[in-house]
Amino acid sequence: MVAKLELSDVLAHVDAQRETSLHRLMDYVRHPSISAHNIGIKDVAELLVDMLSKLGLEARLVPSAGHPMVVARWLKAEGAPTVLLYGHYDVQPPDPLDLWLSPPFEPTIRDGRIFARGVADNKGQHFAQILAIESHLKVHGRLPCNVILLLEGEEEIGSPHIADFVRDHRDLLKADLAVTADGPLHPSGRPTLKLGSRGVISFDLHARHASRDVHSGNFGGVVPNPLWTLVHLLATMKNDRGEITIEGFDDDVLAPTEEECEAVARLPLDLDEIKRSLGLSRLDEPAGRDYYERLCFRPTLTINGLHGGYGGPGSKTVLPHEAIAKCDIRLVAAQDTADILRKVEAHVHKHAPEVTVVSHGSGMQPSKTPINSSYAAPIRQAIVAAHGIEPLIYPAGFGSLPGYAFTQILGIDAFVTPYGNADEANHAPNENLKIECFFNGIRTGAALLDTLGKANFG
Amino acid sequence: MVAKLELSDVLAHVDAQRETSLHRLMDYVRHPSISAHNIGIKDVAELLVDMLSKLGLEARLVPSAGHPMVVARWLKAEGAPTVLLYGHYDVQPPDPLDLWLSPPFEPTIRDGRIFARGVADNKGQHFAQILAIESHLKVHGRLPCNVILLLEGEEEIGSPHIADFVRDHRDLLKADLAVTADGPLHPSGRPTLKLGSRGVISFDLHARHASRDVHSGNFGGVVPNPLWTLVHLLATMKNDRGEITIEGFDDDVLAPTEEECEAVARLPLDLDEIKRSLGLSRLDEPAGRDYYERLCFRPTLTINGLHGGYGGPGSKTVLPHEAIAKCDIRLVAAQDTADILRKVEAHVHKHAPEVTVVSHGSGMQPSKTPINSSYAAPIRQAIVAAHGIEPLIYPAGFGSLPGYAFTQILGIDAFVTPYGNADEANHAPNENLKIECFFNGIRTGAALLDTLGKANFG
Repeated sequence: MVAKLELSDVLAHVDAQRETSLHRLMDYVRHPSISAHNIGIKDVAELLVDMLSKLGLEARLVPSAGHPMVVARWLKAEGAPTVLLYGHYDVQPPDPLDLWLSPPFEPTIRDGRIFARGVADNKGQHFAQILAIESHLKVHGRLPCNVILLLEGEEEIGSPHIADFVRDHRDLLKADLAVTADGPLHPSGRPTLKLGSRGVISFDLHARHASRDVHSGNFGGVVPNPLWTLVHLLATMKNDRGEITIEGFDDDVLAPTEEECEAVARLPLDLDEIKRSLGLSRLDEPAGRDYYERLCFRPTLTINGLHGGYGGPGSKTVLPHEAIAKCDIRLVAAQDTADILRKVEAHVHKHAPEVTVVSHGSGMQPSKTPINSSYAAPIRQAIVAAHGIEPLIYPAGFGSLPGYAFTQILGIDAFVTPYGNADEANHAPNENLKIECFFNGIRTGAALLDTLGKANFG
Repeated sequence: MVAKLELSDVLAHVDAQRETSLHRLMDYVRHPSISAHNIGIKDVAELLVDMLSKLGLEARLVPSAGHPMVVARWLKAEGAPTVLLYGHYDVQPPDPLDLWLSPPFEPTIRDGRIFARGVADNKGQHFAQILAIESHLKVHGRLPCNVILLLEGEEEIGSPHIADFVRDHRDLLKADLAVTADGPLHPSGRPTLKLGSRGVISFDLHARHASRDVHSGNFGGVVPNPLWTLVHLLATMKNDRGEITIEGFDDDVLAPTEEECEAVARLPLDLDEIKRSLGLSRLDEPAGRDYYERLCFRPTLTINGLHGGYGGPGSKTVLPHEAIAKCDIRLVAAQDTADILRKVEAHVHKHAPEVTVVSHGSGMQPSKTPINSSYAAPIRQAIVAAHGIEPLIYPAGFGSLPGYAFTQILGIDAFVTPYGNADEANHAPNENLKIECFFNGIRTGAALLDTLGKANFG
């Protein structure tokens, strides 16, 4: 017979360790692990395996077709469910460096926040999960449920191998549900629970006409301009009313269910504050669209960057010979990455056959977990236990996480419980994590193991 | 009574001095004089005054509101006409440096060409004029007609002060006609004579929405994207059929006269060769438009550069907060720079009121000299004397030269006699001047002084 494991003891331990935990996080984010540039990946993966082994988990580095995965398991809670905790140990490139107030890999505390690349996205969040596991093991010598920790090294380059990896390691990863701590809390600081995420594909549009740049006077009107080619092509892909006009683009977009609509209607919204915090005078087109509808139920086409020709001071009367637009598309259920990429290619081929489409990997599918999943209740209870407040329920998260690997391949429900502050500035200079968010993350992680262990899934 | 001054003696001198002249040109282009970056301007201006004074011209540096003008006069040919020879001693910035095969300010000879920034645009061309003057003075001790040499130091930044300067120094510059040696010969190598030039204005379109870059997942669909704003604005300014759609843009475009149409119809055209030399598979839209109509009689709207967001390798899921498009417009007679800039501003204000228009100076007006000007004949004779072949007559040159300061302010006819090869790569890496073109330029300049001195303008 197993002794009753009190959560309160674990949370007391978490609170007593705050100072130590903070310094351990700062040590962790000091290590760069930039997947896009293949910097520091192996070092950080090995550091994690070492750390997790010392906690008593069966931890190993498992090769994938790209950067290796860190897998650590603790499966001694017979009869209890198994939760797969997913995170990623890679970070975004830190540029532009000159906009950082303190160096990206020298974590610095200002105004109750830790500033460092990756501190919010995702190191501070999965490190909180690790400390939650550690706290249970330190206090009670065991965990209330079974845990599989899966830490990826390629999330910031689009998780190109997670699907194959999960498919190839079904047994190693056999679990009842998946929980990811990533992304931001609500701007008010309220905890959130997300039941899926938008998918993403990234691609470049490359236009080239002449073999060299020419003088805009001697050749203007004669030599085609790749920037005009991209402008006219892009204008056919999304109109100025915010409608994506790629043929067939919306075919598979699922209309939200009544329950999902009710869920977003309950979400708080302070548009003025959102606009103030971003320095915005208006939201994007279409003007009348509901805020959460934009983020949960609608796909997007974003130009991440567009570059061609002269960009220096003053003027230069040049007609450039090549230009590139870098784009991403956020997909919603039940759009399919391969299908949407085919539609992009067909559209470009029809409207600007001279333009080349170069996709970056196969992208990430959208994922969706039913809003009435039986695991939703214990996760909500855990959040309440840690925060003392009910979480906001989002039918879908806004960003892209590889939850589809769990829902579509493992066939299990997947949830996202973000620990970061809304102004975490992930993917941007001065990325930061509020220290309080980090501590609440550890508490939430600890409570989650407890509520999952005690829940009755009949 | 003035002795008969034989041109043949002068041309023989020019030919005998080829080696020396070539090395003097190479010494001259070794001095950078980049007006956009204010590098070397004063040094080169003083070098010119010194050189011209030593030739026996009354030469001085005359201040303008910007970089100084070099003015050198020889006015002892009583009864003969006075020709104002215009050129510019400033050059384009040399970047991108990594595409130069030899350093831009270390003139290098390869394949019968001198490679150096500014060697064609415009140092090699006005230096040829100077050597032509020198040759007459060396051989005959005098010039057949009066000469005013005006060398500007701001042409590559749009000649912002030439109009005011000419207006303020009418007496100093009092002449009967103006001749500029700038731009390229016909691709076949045949000499050309141009009776005017397109004007130009340059401006930036600056779009900014949020106060910082954001994550395309967490904010895509909510935060307006300045790149989409520029794409949609630009698409309203010129359509994909090549028509400029700024309201009122074409109002003042003069239809070519019958004589002008006949002139361009006589111009040779090898479209296949033009396309081959530029690596083009097609000309710019509109597809059916006559080649020379594009360049002589039609305005253009060129995007010189467009930059915003991520431009590095791979993908980055960022939604940028600002973007800039740098544009120029080539104007034709009788469009007016200030009027067109007002129309651009009104158009932007109507279609994208959040976008800022920043103009670079007041631009350059188009200029036009009647195709039946009485000075056309002696200039043609000079070209024939130097080259042994009739020049091609262009009703208007393609690029922008400050000829309007002569036609509109001094009220005199203005001509352009280019000396550069068609593939001179001006404004681009590996700018070059064929050595043969340089020598023919000196011969043409020498012959021009002769034919103007002997012509009867009764």
